[in-house]
Amino acid sequence: MHGGDIYRNNVQFDFSVSLNPLGGPQEVQWVLTEAALHSDKYPDINHEWLINETARLFEVDEGCIVYGNGASEIIMAICHGFSPKSALLLAPCFSGYEICLKGAVPDCKISYYNLLEENDFELHHDFIERIIVDRPELLFLTNPNNPNGRLIDSYLLHDILETCDEIGTVAVVDECFLPLTGKEKELSLIYNLDKYKNLIVLRAFTKTYAIPGVRLGYAICASKTLADTISRHIPEWNLSIFAQMAGAECLKHRDYVEESVRTINEERRYLTMELKNLGMQVFTSDGNFILFKSKDEDLNSRLLAYKILIRDCSDYNGLGHGFYRIAVKQHNENAGLISALGNVIT
Amino acid sequence: MHGGDIYRNNVQFDFSVSLNPLGGPQEVQWVLTEAALHSDKYPDINHEWLINETARLFEVDEGCIVYGNGASEIIMAICHGFSPKSALLLAPCFSGYEICLKGAVPDCKISYYNLLEENDFELHHDFIERIIVDRPELLFLTNPNNPNGRLIDSYLLHDILETCDEIGTVAVVDECFLPLTGKEKELSLIYNLDKYKNLIVLRAFTKTYAIPGVRLGYAICASKTLADTISRHIPEWNLSIFAQMAGAECLKHRDYVEESVRTINEERRYLTMELKNLGMQVFTSDGNFILFKSKDEDLNSRLLAYKILIRDCSDYNGLGHGFYRIAVKQHNENAGLISALGNVIT
Repeated sequence: MHGGDIYRNNVQFDFSVSLNPLGGPQEVQWVLTEAALHSDKYPDINHEWLINETARLFEVDEGCIVYGNGASEIIMAICHGFSPKSALLLAPCFSGYEICLKGAVPDCKISYYNLLEENDFELHHDFIERIIVDRPELLFLTNPNNPNGRLIDSYLLHDILETCDEIGTVAVVDECFLPLTGKEKELSLIYNLDKYKNLIVLRAFTKTYAIPGVRLGYAICASKTLADTISRHIPEWNLSIFAQMAGAECLKHRDYVEESVRTINEERRYLTMELKNLGMQVFTSDGNFILFKSKDEDLNSRLLAYKILIRDCSDYNGLGHGFYRIAVKQHNENAGLISALGNVIT
Repeated sequence: MHGGDIYRNNVQFDFSVSLNPLGGPQEVQWVLTEAALHSDKYPDINHEWLINETARLFEVDEGCIVYGNGASEIIMAICHGFSPKSALLLAPCFSGYEICLKGAVPDCKISYYNLLEENDFELHHDFIERIIVDRPELLFLTNPNNPNGRLIDSYLLHDILETCDEIGTVAVVDECFLPLTGKEKELSLIYNLDKYKNLIVLRAFTKTYAIPGVRLGYAICASKTLADTISRHIPEWNLSIFAQMAGAECLKHRDYVEESVRTINEERRYLTMELKNLGMQVFTSDGNFILFKSKDEDLNSRLLAYKILIRDCSDYNGLGHGFYRIAVKQHNENAGLISALGNVIT
């Protein structure tokens, strides 16, 4: 159901997970090594330093912040907390929302808004009508969307959130890939939280700082009531000492992604061009990963012969065989992927 | 609500958390340092190695094992999974059960069986009648109990679990402190899982291997159905790469506690004698911590002047002012505590 399975595949180049191609700051590595010396201490049960610093950086109220053992813990707690009778998801989108909804709220009626291949999998304005008709209690959006990487038009996003507020839908906008588009300061809803009542913005350190092994994410909510509803369902001591120390260090490196964004933009153009040259249908991405369609349905297993892992997207709602997602990595790795792809396609 | 708050107190000797007094194996430290180099990889979403090895060591079915980000994550997932209308707890007991029940199942009717000071806070056979009368859907027991450290008589425990099976009560027995009593192989219910239908045994690496900063615990259930009911409520990628690697190393050192148990038994005798010499009422413990009662109600703050933190137990259900819990640590630390106590008592 997910990328990154290097445990049951022989992988040297993992294009199936979409992390910062330049890796994380060296200082975070040092701090994680140092954290090993503190593993005999309980972490701070209140995450006080992390919460205070996050509040200060984003100028939000401390009571509106929830820290999680990865964004995945917060998604589960959102499902438990709001226990929605109905939820609306995009198709395709990250499968984690559906997994948590089905686990936490088995009776929830989940409906799907289909992003269309002929529209380049872009979200269109008729989505507003869908919200008005469905009146879902909970809505999950990812900006940019996963697996295609397209940003939601900011005017449309504003209209969606206003509609949610009118109807009483709790809207979760997952911005875990937003910093790597280079448009965080321009587009993040964290800076517009006061405009909405029912908004929860999700963030993770995983992709931006390339530390998926650490597990650290957070939500910033439009109100303390929303945050409390989530927090009640999160276990005590949910952050390890590694997560707390790495998170504190990452928050000191908020401009770290600038160089990564330059690399991503350049390499996304390169990969898009080369994939098209190989006869692939490439969908527009603003992020650090690319969705494409091939007439070959077993590229995944063929690339594994080169120890390259890509994300076969045939299990995504709204996609099917022949769809693949690749991360945008550093040039030599991307060139290696293109070369291997050239060898394996029919 | 818990010990270990070294973040808001100036602490040099932390007696408020009850960890292995000899610390963890050196190899676990090395592995945690090495794990920092792997923080750029997703952990194994299936915890395959840990689950297989745990199944092999305890000769249980892999499908009956649930791994959690600390036992606290599993306790929360148990509350979500069984969503009990009623639950029975001991008073006093670890406050985490009540916190999870109130967070996950606000409508749950929680009742308490009072362990009596005049009975040395020992669980007695009338507990069986209480179960029969109350018919709780969920029962939490800790063996040995926290904060007093007394083991439950094994015949009584057997009767309790048989009664639970007759009534349909799901019984959770938290054995997180059991290995440090030196009686794990004799008393652990993991070796008797096939006798019961509704039993969940909880374990953690935290205390035995002195790694509370890592967050790692597990449940072994009497059936796959019980395990699945819990797992549905646990988020994906819940174990960090640090937890997975440290856990794998810890499982190689299952006899590691032998020397610790010798130290604990010797030092528990020493502390018990010295506390009595200081006029304290000391309750019988079989574990690596001791509950005592003093006529002084502010020992906690007075000991903080010596940078010593102990657990003020006045917030425990069934206790009150003047009750304190201390960890059994190494001799020089214990002697330091006794000396400081001698100075601060009235």
